[in-house]
Amino acid sequence: MSKLFEVVVLGSGAALPTSNRAPSAQYIVCNNRHLLIDCGEGTQSQMRKYGVHFQKIAHIFISHLHGDHYFGLIGLLSTMSLLGRNQGLTIYGPVSLENILKVQFEAGFSPLNFQLNFIPLTANQKEVIFEDNLMRVSAFPLKHRIPTYGFLIEEKGSELILNLPALKEAGVKKEYFKLLKQGNSIELLDGTLLNFAEYTISASPPLSYAYCSDTAPFKNIYSFIKGTTYLYHEATFSNRHKERAKNTAHSTAEQAATVALNLGVKQLFLGHFSSRYPNCEEHLSEASAIFPNTTIVEDGMKISIQ
Amino acid sequence: MSKLFEVVVLGSGAALPTSNRAPSAQYIVCNNRHLLIDCGEGTQSQMRKYGVHFQKIAHIFISHLHGDHYFGLIGLLSTMSLLGRNQGLTIYGPVSLENILKVQFEAGFSPLNFQLNFIPLTANQKEVIFEDNLMRVSAFPLKHRIPTYGFLIEEKGSELILNLPALKEAGVKKEYFKLLKQGNSIELLDGTLLNFAEYTISASPPLSYAYCSDTAPFKNIYSFIKGTTYLYHEATFSNRHKERAKNTAHSTAEQAATVALNLGVKQLFLGHFSSRYPNCEEHLSEASAIFPNTTIVEDGMKISIQ
Repeated sequence: MSKLFEVVVLGSGAALPTSNRAPSAQYIVCNNRHLLIDCGEGTQSQMRKYGVHFQKIAHIFISHLHGDHYFGLIGLLSTMSLLGRNQGLTIYGPVSLENILKVQFEAGFSPLNFQLNFIPLTANQKEVIFEDNLMRVSAFPLKHRIPTYGFLIEEKGSELILNLPALKEAGVKKEYFKLLKQGNSIELLDGTLLNFAEYTISASPPLSYAYCSDTAPFKNIYSFIKGTTYLYHEATFSNRHKERAKNTAHSTAEQAATVALNLGVKQLFLGHFSSRYPNCEEHLSEASAIFPNTTIVEDGMKISIQ
Repeated sequence: MSKLFEVVVLGSGAALPTSNRAPSAQYIVCNNRHLLIDCGEGTQSQMRKYGVHFQKIAHIFISHLHGDHYFGLIGLLSTMSLLGRNQGLTIYGPVSLENILKVQFEAGFSPLNFQLNFIPLTANQKEVIFEDNLMRVSAFPLKHRIPTYGFLIEEKGSELILNLPALKEAGVKKEYFKLLKQGNSIELLDGTLLNFAEYTISASPPLSYAYCSDTAPFKNIYSFIKGTTYLYHEATFSNRHKERAKNTAHSTAEQAATVALNLGVKQLFLGHFSSRYPNCEEHLSEASAIFPNTTIVEDGMKISIQ
């Protein structure tokens, strides 16, 4: 399996769709796992435009229930079903989202043709919400006007090295070495579980991508995503509208850059720009002064996590 | 006031958005009244693209609760509010629509900044749902898999001629003639109501536009929209998929043309095409063979009702 960790920005605007920026949505491929974070109105059309095969997506994460982060979800699910999907799909989001979807499916007498699982997000602390042998997704609370979560995507090193001392000590037979090195855990006939993580070591440090949608600055974020290599952070406003940012529980570009600086990330990506700005020059200059490796995201941009 | 009756097609596709056709939505201006019929996902972006000023819209009519006819409504209302609307708005649609909107406003703690009125559609017969001195909108049931309504938009002749015999017989004073001729009804101090419609006659026959969204062929339609001048009718399928049309309670282009022929309308507009067709040549040739004055609608098309 080739190792790939990539983000496609499907929407980089705030509040409402404009001709340049669709509302929030990001498609993420991490070690052959296909994810969607947020799903503003028109996300399915953005996927079509930017060549994303949405039937591959198995997990959708919704940060919060302001419309610019989820109004496109019901349409995406309907289209997936109409186009013949039968593979199940899991949605992670605030509790009320389940009923919002339910009342719409019921009103249209349009049940989906595939299994939809819903995992409500309720924790006050960071928690792992999905994990397999290739990657891990954690949710963590942000500080906004309604319950809002950020997401941390962590790859697990796809190249593993056998931990020979541990294998020897546990008396694991050589015939299982290849499977363990590939990242498989094995249950033996006698019920013993050989967890690959106990018998292997990553050849390279794992990479990670933190998605911080709508939030005011707050200190807990540093413990939640400590050590993350790449950071996406909202920057709805520039310094000119610092007061407005505070009143609406959003961040300025400078505040986002401060988070990146304190975390020591490799690169900062800014998005969720208010439509009041004709361009993002102010955001870029204000953020770069604090954290030079800052990128303004645009719809359709591909971010390679490497 | 200049007399204008025009339709802007905002979405002409069925089921799901494609790169050529957005899902159903039509903007209608009739004698300075601004209406929207159906509101598929992305309708607000289509309005932006085609130069429709959506804050002028005061009435929105939703034919039924399949997603391709209403998934864009919640986003449009949110954007109207975010952009500072304070003028009230009335939505006419199937009963469940009210709760679908309510749960989403509640989840986002995002009440609208303007008054939203909801009129549920429940009638089994044609009924007038909005009327003033300039126009009239009626809803009538169609035959689909879930409760579905068509809409008939009728202008009232903006040029009125005084019905002098009637005025004389009722003893109406000359001082009221001008107001009545302008289409105003007047309540006198003694409580008497002078209804302009009783004392005036239209100088030209009123024009009308019937919108028949998803429906199987059925005979009641002839009484509901008898005398209509322009007809929009769904034509999801061509004859190749007649059986599929029947099974999904849709119409073929030929069936739509038969309705136009039997009604004797001036012009037929076909839309709501399944995305399985790369173009609509089959629909056009099959319909034109029965009703020559047939037009295939496209997104952005303007229809002048005159």
